[in-house]
Amino acid sequence: MQKFALIGAGFIGSVHAHNLASHPDVDFKLVYDIDLQRATTLAAQHGATAAASLDQIFENNDLDAVFIASSTDSHAQNLRHAADAGLAALVEKPIDLDLETAKSTVAYVERAGIKAMVNFNRRFDRAHAELKELVHTGQIGDVALLQLTSRGPALPPVDYLKSSGGQFRDQAVHFYDLARWITGQDPVKIHAYGSALAAPEIAEFGDVDTSISSLLFPDGALAQIDCVRHTNYGYDERIEALGSEGMAESERQRSGHVTLLQGQQAQSHGLHGNWFDRVQPTYAASLGAFVQSLEDDREVPITLREGLKSQAIAQAAVRSAASGRSETIDYSL
Amino acid sequence: MQKFALIGAGFIGSVHAHNLASHPDVDFKLVYDIDLQRATTLAAQHGATAAASLDQIFENNDLDAVFIASSTDSHAQNLRHAADAGLAALVEKPIDLDLETAKSTVAYVERAGIKAMVNFNRRFDRAHAELKELVHTGQIGDVALLQLTSRGPALPPVDYLKSSGGQFRDQAVHFYDLARWITGQDPVKIHAYGSALAAPEIAEFGDVDTSISSLLFPDGALAQIDCVRHTNYGYDERIEALGSEGMAESERQRSGHVTLLQGQQAQSHGLHGNWFDRVQPTYAASLGAFVQSLEDDREVPITLREGLKSQAIAQAAVRSAASGRSETIDYSL
Amino acid sequence: MQKFALIGAGFIGSVHAHNLASHPDVDFKLVYDIDLQRATTLAAQHGATAAASLDQIFENNDLDAVFIASSTDSHAQNLRHAADAGLAALVEKPIDLDLETAKSTVAYVERAGIKAMVNFNRRFDRAHAELKELVHTGQIGDVALLQLTSRGPALPPVDYLKSSGGQFRDQAVHFYDLARWITGQDPVKIHAYGSALAAPEIAEFGDVDTSISSLLFPDGALAQIDCVRHTNYGYDERIEALGSEGMAESERQRSGHVTLLQGQQAQSHGLHGNWFDRVQPTYAASLGAFVQSLEDDREVPITLREGLKSQAIAQAAVRSAASGRSETIDYSL
Amino acid sequence: MQKFALIGAGFIGSVHAHNLASHPDVDFKLVYDIDLQRATTLAAQHGATAAASLDQIFENNDLDAVFIASSTDSHAQNLRHAADAGLAALVEKPIDLDLETAKSTVAYVERAGIKAMVNFNRRFDRAHAELKELVHTGQIGDVALLQLTSRGPALPPVDYLKSSGGQFRDQAVHFYDLARWITGQDPVKIHAYGSALAAPEIAEFGDVDTSISSLLFPDGALAQIDCVRHTNYGYDERIEALGSEGMAESERQRSGHVTLLQGQQAQSHGLHGNWFDRVQPTYAASLGAFVQSLEDDREVPITLREGLKSQAIAQAAVRSAASGRSETIDYSL
Repeated sequence: MQKFALIGAGFIGSVHAHNLASHPDVDFKLVYDIDLQRATTLAAQHGATAAASLDQIFENNDLDAVFIASSTDSHAQNLRHAADAGLAALVEKPIDLDLETAKSTVAYVERAGIKAMVNFNRRFDRAHAELKELVHTGQIGDVALLQLTSRGPALPPVDYLKSSGGQFRDQAVHFYDLARWITGQDPVKIHAYGSALAAPEIAEFGDVDTSISSLLFPDGALAQIDCVRHTNYGYDERIEALGSEGMAESERQRSGHVTLLQGQQAQSHGLHGNWFDRVQPTYAASLGAFVQSLEDDREVPITLREGLKSQAIAQAAVRSAASGRSETIDYSL
Repeated sequence: MQKFALIGAGFIGSVHAHNLASHPDVDFKLVYDIDLQRATTLAAQHGATAAASLDQIFENNDLDAVFIASSTDSHAQNLRHAADAGLAALVEKPIDLDLETAKSTVAYVERAGIKAMVNFNRRFDRAHAELKELVHTGQIGDVALLQLTSRGPALPPVDYLKSSGGQFRDQAVHFYDLARWITGQDPVKIHAYGSALAAPEIAEFGDVDTSISSLLFPDGALAQIDCVRHTNYGYDERIEALGSEGMAESERQRSGHVTLLQGQQAQSHGLHGNWFDRVQPTYAASLGAFVQSLEDDREVPITLREGLKSQAIAQAAVRSAASGRSETIDYSL
Repeated sequence: MQKFALIGAGFIGSVHAHNLASHPDVDFKLVYDIDLQRATTLAAQHGATAAASLDQIFENNDLDAVFIASSTDSHAQNLRHAADAGLAALVEKPIDLDLETAKSTVAYVERAGIKAMVNFNRRFDRAHAELKELVHTGQIGDVALLQLTSRGPALPPVDYLKSSGGQFRDQAVHFYDLARWITGQDPVKIHAYGSALAAPEIAEFGDVDTSISSLLFPDGALAQIDCVRHTNYGYDERIEALGSEGMAESERQRSGHVTLLQGQQAQSHGLHGNWFDRVQPTYAASLGAFVQSLEDDREVPITLREGLKSQAIAQAAVRSAASGRSETIDYSL
Repeated sequence: MQKFALIGAGFIGSVHAHNLASHPDVDFKLVYDIDLQRATTLAAQHGATAAASLDQIFENNDLDAVFIASSTDSHAQNLRHAADAGLAALVEKPIDLDLETAKSTVAYVERAGIKAMVNFNRRFDRAHAELKELVHTGQIGDVALLQLTSRGPALPPVDYLKSSGGQFRDQAVHFYDLARWITGQDPVKIHAYGSALAAPEIAEFGDVDTSISSLLFPDGALAQIDCVRHTNYGYDERIEALGSEGMAESERQRSGHVTLLQGQQAQSHGLHGNWFDRVQPTYAASLGAFVQSLEDDREVPITLREGLKSQAIAQAAVRSAASGRSETIDYSL
């Protein structure tokens, strides 16, 4: 049984609270939020207690782990506190939007020796995980080409985008991570184009809503990643992996199973109307994998260092979009 | 808030217990089972109390409703007790395998005036419900032909089959009910063929594992229902409704979203490996609809009388399989 | 090289003329039609000669085979002429709408010893043929259940229907034949319901436009066949064969490969707008198989006797629709 | 009626010969090939005459048009001859592998004023054409992102590759053309990565077998093109066009319509085993469009100048693969 505190009681925090409360090996103790009322409400829903301050979490002798789901700019600080307190930590990505800060945080945490995992939840998508397994068991031979599609249904609030770090660091980074995970390789070069098409106003703060990234792996394998913020046709996420022996895909997923045939047309359920309907199950699975690594005293499935690597790719994508060059990815930590 | 007792702590009882405990408007109080230990264990998992006898349920002044999920031969008696106690009742089908007993039970319950619903859970399948809505809002015009497919992955235990009432009364009856519900009509005639192919030994007690039923509706519309106990390719349930203006279907549902393409073939996820993976969500939805009718003091969505009608169809199917005739369905109650 | 004459220059005759002219082993010599002008025009398009009378065909010493695609009521007479003339014959179904006439014709033709084939062209549908091969090579184990769907997009002209012999003999008969061919068995019993829903007026001459047939095979296997004249959503033809080891299907075929995703919906190509778009390739394949049997001096792939058997099933279907009984099929010839 | 000569009697020449012979408005007169025997055989199959020399074509007063399907290095010379002779010309791409030679040839041909079309046959794929129509009629709003997939089943002979101009100029160029055609815009920048994975030996002559191209359009729209020579799972060609209002796709096409369901898997027809099964219909359609423009005396559907533009994109792709930069596309002619 692992005793958990949760930091952050916003939308995604409430998802994690539900999963913490439902996990049979988790004792969900505390919730902290900068808005105490929000923490109190969420804690009450799940039989936990609201913490009035972070000290109640980090100076607590009766906790095993902390789930950091607070605002991005507090991730690094909370990780350092967890390291000081000897608490295992599961942290939402990114570790910090500033890569240098992220690196020094990881170094700090590693010295402390706590178990710490970055929450790249999409690795726990059941179909993506099956695809990865097909690749890793040699079903498609040597990987030659990946195609990753990441398209959200509608533009998030501009306020969110402003503090998100931009499309490459916020959205594409999940797929850089998936590309590394599926191939088992770190790409060496990246090229990216990006445009602000659905929301030209976000170009003012340097963001884009439509982008394509090309990756080159050490053995010559290639990857394409297309990221769109606003599809107007639902949430479209899928992966193809083509290898020397065949191709595996994690397919587009429809939101239902009814078709109406009339005249010359067939009208079917389209895709999920929002991202959460599609990715919801990944959060419980991700938490479950983290808890299992604590129970078994094994390495966490996604180390902070892996988080840094995917962030380094995103950083190179940002550079490429500006320079018009294929950029070498710098993994020095 | 509705205070519930559950009768029956077997597999399906445990599903209901979970749903009762999770429903925000249900106060899950008591569990009874002929095996007290089983009731105690299940009650403990969901914060309820085990009842040592049925009297604790039916002579209890602090209950609103009872969920009857005990063995089939006790349904009628439990319904009568609920009627005497003035408790609303949600009962698994059938009311009783003997149609005359079922009829007299319904008459008794109706006289008592309690709310009572028979749990034809498949009406709460999301895709089937969308199909029914398309039909009832005129999207396909006048219904001309229904095709209902009900195929289970593997033969249930022979002991289960022996007490099930046979394929027409146990399996096909759900689809007779769906056919009535989708068309909004009561069929007038039925013809059925049945064979014991996967398990010839069940013919000894008069059962079949593969059957086809043909229904004729008052306006000339037709329905075909195929029922198979043992597909060897998973759980296959789907419905087509063809009308004067087009066709709607609740499609076959695959168990996953990964495809492997190699050489000249595409290998994909097949169907769900067992019925429960497919129908699980219907149980919570069915309970939810029953609770809502209690909260709103409205008629339950599926009256016992509707249960009798579908059972009357099954009874005529059994007669037809024996007589080789198209049998008129007798709805007199 | 086989020298052919074609009898009948209507729509389907023109399809056959094209296939005869395109076949590398066919020397397409003559075309006859009761309308000489029509024969002349069709012959000219394909480098053949119009025959002013049937005598030019049946008293011709320079022909090997005749393709009988004239009106149904002339099939038997033309078959007898071919038998007298020693010409191989490929005849559109039925041999004759009157089963007794058909039987005596077959007996006459068999005595003459010519090669004669009835044109159940759907056996040459590529997908149906693959399904049959899967079944015959044991891929699904022992057949337990067939589901055959035959749905036309729109009601044929009432004049056509009047002389067609009715839905069971005209449309369903193709699928009775497919059921025999796929299972490799002759069904022993049939039950049928039929209604005139799209065109109530055809009930006046005893026809139906929506029907369901249930077949029972000697080993207990079952088949369902649904026939619809007017879908309003295109041409829908497909087959499922379920056996002890799995299920094979010849799937519904869409008319194109474009999908438009918008909002919550996916709008795709529906089915073929008319039957001919779907079945066209079967005619050339059927002719090809007949020609091959002539070239190799082997038995034709579908004997007239097989045509009689499927017609006997249709006859029993008609009886069942009238009697309300499961009818035993009489194959005595 | 247009009188045609065909230059080139190889595999693709034989396809064109069949289409020329079948077209109702074409009088197929002459076939030339450097191998006279090959020309003679092909001509005989289609009622045409073999030309012993090119002079018989270009000094012939009884011709309207020439179809140039000879080896790539002779395209430019044959185009100039056609211009001199005043013959309309349909030429396989490319005009010449050397872009400067191609430009001067186009200038020469334009001065002569003949109708000349480059055979980008994939524009005549029915599904691609429907997609383009959906885009041009505003069904998806403003184009934001194109995804084009071009994957061949197996590596062509290395001898073919050596003289092909490389994957960008030989294979990708078709999809650069489709991207221009669908968007109605000329891209301004391109970035490309390429690897020789299936056949490392082709790197010796500077070719690749796996490549990804990224295009940037003037309005910020983006396109991704993936090209693979060797899939080992069949011929996979498809297009997605995502716009401000939704998404349209020309889908992956399977080679058949049979599925076998067993245990937990569904095994279906994969893709076409070779490119020709998929693209065959485009050749007749392309020829038909060219003939129609001659009959109507209208501009040909794809001018040589359009061919130059797509070739200019390919040229920039080659530069980018070498430079590691996003390259500006130079359309100056």
